Amino acid sequence: MIDVTIIGASGYTGGELIRLLEKHEKVRITGVSSRKYDGEAVYKVHQNLRGSDLVFKNLKPEDIDADLVFTATPHGYSMKIVPELVESGIKVIDLSGDYRFRDFSVYEKYYGLKHTNPLDAVYGLPEIYRSDIKKATLVANPGCFPTGAILSSFVLSKMGIVDRLVFDSKTGVSGGGISPNEAFHFPNVYDNVNPYNIVGHRHGPEIQEELKEFSNVLVSFTPHLVPVIRGILTTCHGFSNNINKSNDVTDFNVEDIHEEYKKQFKDEIFVKVLDIGEIPKLSSVRGSNFAHIGGFEVDETGRLVIISAIDNLVKGASGQAIHNMNIMFGFKEDESISHYGLAP
Amino acid sequence: MIDVTIIGASGYTGGELIRLLEKHEKVRITGVSSRKYDGEAVYKVHQNLRGSDLVFKNLKPEDIDADLVFTATPHGYSMKIVPELVESGIKVIDLSGDYRFRDFSVYEKYYGLKHTNPLDAVYGLPEIYRSDIKKATLVANPGCFPTGAILSSFVLSKMGIVDRLVFDSKTGVSGGGISPNEAFHFPNVYDNVNPYNIVGHRHGPEIQEELKEFSNVLVSFTPHLVPVIRGILTTCHGFSNNINKSNDVTDFNVEDIHEEYKKQFKDEIFVKVLDIGEIPKLSSVRGSNFAHIGGFEVDETGRLVIISAIDNLVKGASGQAIHNMNIMFGFKEDESISHYGLAP
Amino acid sequence: MIDVTIIGASGYTGGELIRLLEKHEKVRITGVSSRKYDGEAVYKVHQNLRGSDLVFKNLKPEDIDADLVFTATPHGYSMKIVPELVESGIKVIDLSGDYRFRDFSVYEKYYGLKHTNPLDAVYGLPEIYRSDIKKATLVANPGCFPTGAILSSFVLSKMGIVDRLVFDSKTGVSGGGISPNEAFHFPNVYDNVNPYNIVGHRHGPEIQEELKEFSNVLVSFTPHLVPVIRGILTTCHGFSNNINKSNDVTDFNVEDIHEEYKKQFKDEIFVKVLDIGEIPKLSSVRGSNFAHIGGFEVDETGRLVIISAIDNLVKGASGQAIHNMNIMFGFKEDESISHYGLAP
Amino acid sequence: MIDVTIIGASGYTGGELIRLLEKHEKVRITGVSSRKYDGEAVYKVHQNLRGSDLVFKNLKPEDIDADLVFTATPHGYSMKIVPELVESGIKVIDLSGDYRFRDFSVYEKYYGLKHTNPLDAVYGLPEIYRSDIKKATLVANPGCFPTGAILSSFVLSKMGIVDRLVFDSKTGVSGGGISPNEAFHFPNVYDNVNPYNIVGHRHGPEIQEELKEFSNVLVSFTPHLVPVIRGILTTCHGFSNNINKSNDVTDFNVEDIHEEYKKQFKDEIFVKVLDIGEIPKLSSVRGSNFAHIGGFEVDETGRLVIISAIDNLVKGASGQAIHNMNIMFGFKEDESISHYGLAP
Repeated sequence: MIDVTIIGASGYTGGELIRLLEKHEKVRITGVSSRKYDGEAVYKVHQNLRGSDLVFKNLKPEDIDADLVFTATPHGYSMKIVPELVESGIKVIDLSGDYRFRDFSVYEKYYGLKHTNPLDAVYGLPEIYRSDIKKATLVANPGCFPTGAILSSFVLSKMGIVDRLVFDSKTGVSGGGISPNEAFHFPNVYDNVNPYNIVGHRHGPEIQEELKEFSNVLVSFTPHLVPVIRGILTTCHGFSNNINKSNDVTDFNVEDIHEEYKKQFKDEIFVKVLDIGEIPKLSSVRGSNFAHIGGFEVDETGRLVIISAIDNLVKGASGQAIHNMNIMFGFKEDESISHYGLAP
Repeated sequence: MIDVTIIGASGYTGGELIRLLEKHEKVRITGVSSRKYDGEAVYKVHQNLRGSDLVFKNLKPEDIDADLVFTATPHGYSMKIVPELVESGIKVIDLSGDYRFRDFSVYEKYYGLKHTNPLDAVYGLPEIYRSDIKKATLVANPGCFPTGAILSSFVLSKMGIVDRLVFDSKTGVSGGGISPNEAFHFPNVYDNVNPYNIVGHRHGPEIQEELKEFSNVLVSFTPHLVPVIRGILTTCHGFSNNINKSNDVTDFNVEDIHEEYKKQFKDEIFVKVLDIGEIPKLSSVRGSNFAHIGGFEVDETGRLVIISAIDNLVKGASGQAIHNMNIMFGFKEDESISHYGLAP
Repeated sequence: MIDVTIIGASGYTGGELIRLLEKHEKVRITGVSSRKYDGEAVYKVHQNLRGSDLVFKNLKPEDIDADLVFTATPHGYSMKIVPELVESGIKVIDLSGDYRFRDFSVYEKYYGLKHTNPLDAVYGLPEIYRSDIKKATLVANPGCFPTGAILSSFVLSKMGIVDRLVFDSKTGVSGGGISPNEAFHFPNVYDNVNPYNIVGHRHGPEIQEELKEFSNVLVSFTPHLVPVIRGILTTCHGFSNNINKSNDVTDFNVEDIHEEYKKQFKDEIFVKVLDIGEIPKLSSVRGSNFAHIGGFEVDETGRLVIISAIDNLVKGASGQAIHNMNIMFGFKEDESISHYGLAP
Repeated sequence: MIDVTIIGASGYTGGELIRLLEKHEKVRITGVSSRKYDGEAVYKVHQNLRGSDLVFKNLKPEDIDADLVFTATPHGYSMKIVPELVESGIKVIDLSGDYRFRDFSVYEKYYGLKHTNPLDAVYGLPEIYRSDIKKATLVANPGCFPTGAILSSFVLSKMGIVDRLVFDSKTGVSGGGISPNEAFHFPNVYDNVNPYNIVGHRHGPEIQEELKEFSNVLVSFTPHLVPVIRGILTTCHGFSNNINKSNDVTDFNVEDIHEEYKKQFKDEIFVKVLDIGEIPKLSSVRGSNFAHIGGFEVDETGRLVIISAIDNLVKGASGQAIHNMNIMFGFKEDESISHYGLAP
């Protein structure tokens, strides 16, 4: 049994952490911090959590006595509190972007912020970095888009068979957070599709940095807001320079590729590789920590198409954070996150 | 540990039973029956259940060896198989309408079917009939609309203070089942509201029969299809004849009424009575077995308004069925159905 | 040809006025006023109006030279500018609530505002007040909920056969305006139903005031926000005291009632009375100035159900305002608002 | 004034033709044909058209006396009736895929049908083929996806600056037609994203055939079903081989490209070229015949992104068909299709 505190508990990812951790057999939630809702019952803000006894407190880092802290705090704020927590011997899983980059200059460029407290962190994608996570003190939980994009394609990069990947992602609105704004005003989203940051979105370089660990591949990324609450569906279009030069020859062998994906994920609880031609959809993973990967088809121009589906708040955020916690503390990997997706 | 079989497992309520029962510590699913999908892996139909090893079989009643059978079968079909199961000593929870009425002539009138196999059954609303359910051999799981409507109002009927109740219900589309038809064609439902069976819906007399167990009250019911997948929100408008006669005097005392609701449900895990003026919403109970009841306001004309929200597939069907099972077999009442709603 | 100015042109009703008036053969839009967007092209705010040359200006009442002004301004603001406009000889159609009530004390109670500039106005529901509108200087355009509710029921009040009416309304989100807030944050509305102001909504007394012009009837009103952009579907539950006293006898004669509705609206372009048992739906009137009225059924308890569907921004606001203008200036009544609803 | 008949009038594109043509000042609708609804009032099927006097008839080609026939009939059926109509001197605009391909063997491959009646037809995209359309006897109205894709990119192909284009399209459900099926069952679409035919969709070769008229470019296409009724948003990802070879140099000059688009469409009523960085969205064109084209950004890998938005039933089908008719008969090009999009 460990003591866990959540900072930034009034947002969507904070709410998800509480929803899942309250049912975790090895976890006691000892603090849920919110500046805005200090003293308020958690269920007044997260009304789905009616039944919980938790109450928000405005906790300072120095007040916290826990084995693990989740910082579900905004970019730029995490860096202010994480170092103090780490120094005091508390393990930290940070859900912000502050510690996701190896190269902090990339962070500073894409987040438009000076990084005042760089620290070594493990990138918390268990399917790649499990052994590092086990020993980590600070885990940088991946971004939601990068989770779906990297899972759909790092095997390709490992195989060294792609030169260019275009990730065309469709995301639910919960990725934008709990605060209302014009972009998420119901009449602006419903019955609509809104591309945004069509070039230069900050999750592009995060994907790029991870994929180039395996081989040299050019990464492009464009997100679209669709009228969905949860979920990111990523369409990964893959190209090889060999193919680009010749109209007629396709040298992607989908059977080999598919075989390699099956091998890579065969012991993974949360990644399901579908059959060739089977297509993932958001409803299959809604509310769950599963990632579904499918497609595996090549068209006449030599373009390879792979599709991944995740729940942005679970596998793309809080569920993956709990998965990381389970690994760090030697718990059963799927403890409290084993449930199936909610469909229909 | 008990052995459980689900008949009609390829529909939505069947899928929900599997989703929840696979995580139940005291249950082994020994059969999932479907005529249409005989031999098919369950996850090919219920794609959210990828990871399950279950395979549909076309099971005949005589093939079934189980402690409990859930019949998630269509109205009119349950009556053909339930008696044989019951006779062979298997407990049955029937999710169809076939055994919900005390008065089978009401069933025959509203379902337009001759009832060929009447049997005594317990109406499976645990908050009213827990002690009968404990001893039951056959439980008739309540309809989705009646669950929300009765929970919102049976206390009023017990108190004997209402003469007329109008239930104006808004339901998600999953209540209509997994088979496509014109009424559930996406462009007909999205961005739309469709009232249907505005008088004479078969769930009206089911509500009426239950409420009149407590006192004499006239029940009216009108359902509306809204662009939502799961959930029933019921607006219960209550009237007293005393009030109708006089414009100025309101004799509903909301504090007393609210107090009575709090008392009635104080030991119930799944029913949450909100404060006076707090309003339930579907998102708070989505995917969960909770029922939220709120509102408790009276307008200047003496109309009392109470609102209830449930997930039609969980509290309104499969979750409640599992709750009944837990009671029948002495398990923890919320085993496998204790999780919170999925919000946002 | 008349000169028309719109004050408050950057909101939804302002945008609708422009959308429709730009195609009006007898209207020249001489001003579109917005404080916030002074100097901005209209199509930058209302992106569907790309192609329009109009530019927002911050117009003061004294700057306006027009035959008619639409004030699509917030409650409380209209009363500050309408009197000056009227005095200067300009006709005004006010889309706010400021001039809708005969009894200004009701306004002050329900809007929580002191009314500083009471004026006589004609209630702009053409189907009732056409002859007054023809001669009006100031028209108070009805509220969106009252438009649907009154059209569904004033015939009943005229017939003198109902003692109580309960309007249970389901509205799209555009009724809440163009400004984002928590209630209209996409994840709070989508896949959800939100009742609000379940008693005491300010549109209740507006309905009450109009219906009691015909006979004494008690009016109750409860609105619900549904995941829809446009449209109000109103379920009108009607009761007679005679019926309340006796369980068995229904004295509503739906054929007579239906006949009376047909008669009342036979020359109305915009009100369509459906056959008995036919049910209106929002998609049939989407984007149009039509009101569909249907249902006309009585249940076993003697409750009468009538359903109306309108587009809240057109028949419930800007389209009806243009209808009023057409009447005031002797134009063809359906000029620029004759198009059908957009379905699917 | 011309006489027009619509065959296949009970589907979505048929309904749209009626909705728009009934307000056309130069058109008399002399026949609306439907086998299924012979004798039924049009407004019983298309309930938004309540007010129309039209009645479906089951018309044979030989019964038709008209200046123009729209065949809104299924693929494979048009080819059976179009030749007879054309021979009898009637002009035809065919909304099916039967006459869209220059190379009928491509049609046969992708539609899986033997083409029994090949005829010369003009591809009805007015922005490219206006002068041919003016003189045409048979116009093949473009597919919905090709309309959005070609408009977003034919200028690039004309400029000869792209080697590869990937069209990642997001479509509303109305593109799938009025008949319910599993793919369009509400719970399968809502809150979900469904990619389909991720390679090999029949609209890919249609786009390819048109774009290669200008220069040699490889076309890839993947459609996704999103929870939207109307609209196709196409994300066009463009690549040049020059760029692929070098990570650092971008030789797309977006200012030049944007200038070329502005020039190309400067006299087009229905195509709006947005500023560089402005992003089209479906809500801006909903229900209208407009196409919005925007984006025009290049990322660090040299990928060019252009976005187009259309209403699939209007610019992608019936509106464009009427545009073609207006050109063929010398009417004002925007007669009956000049209205703005419906937003919010």
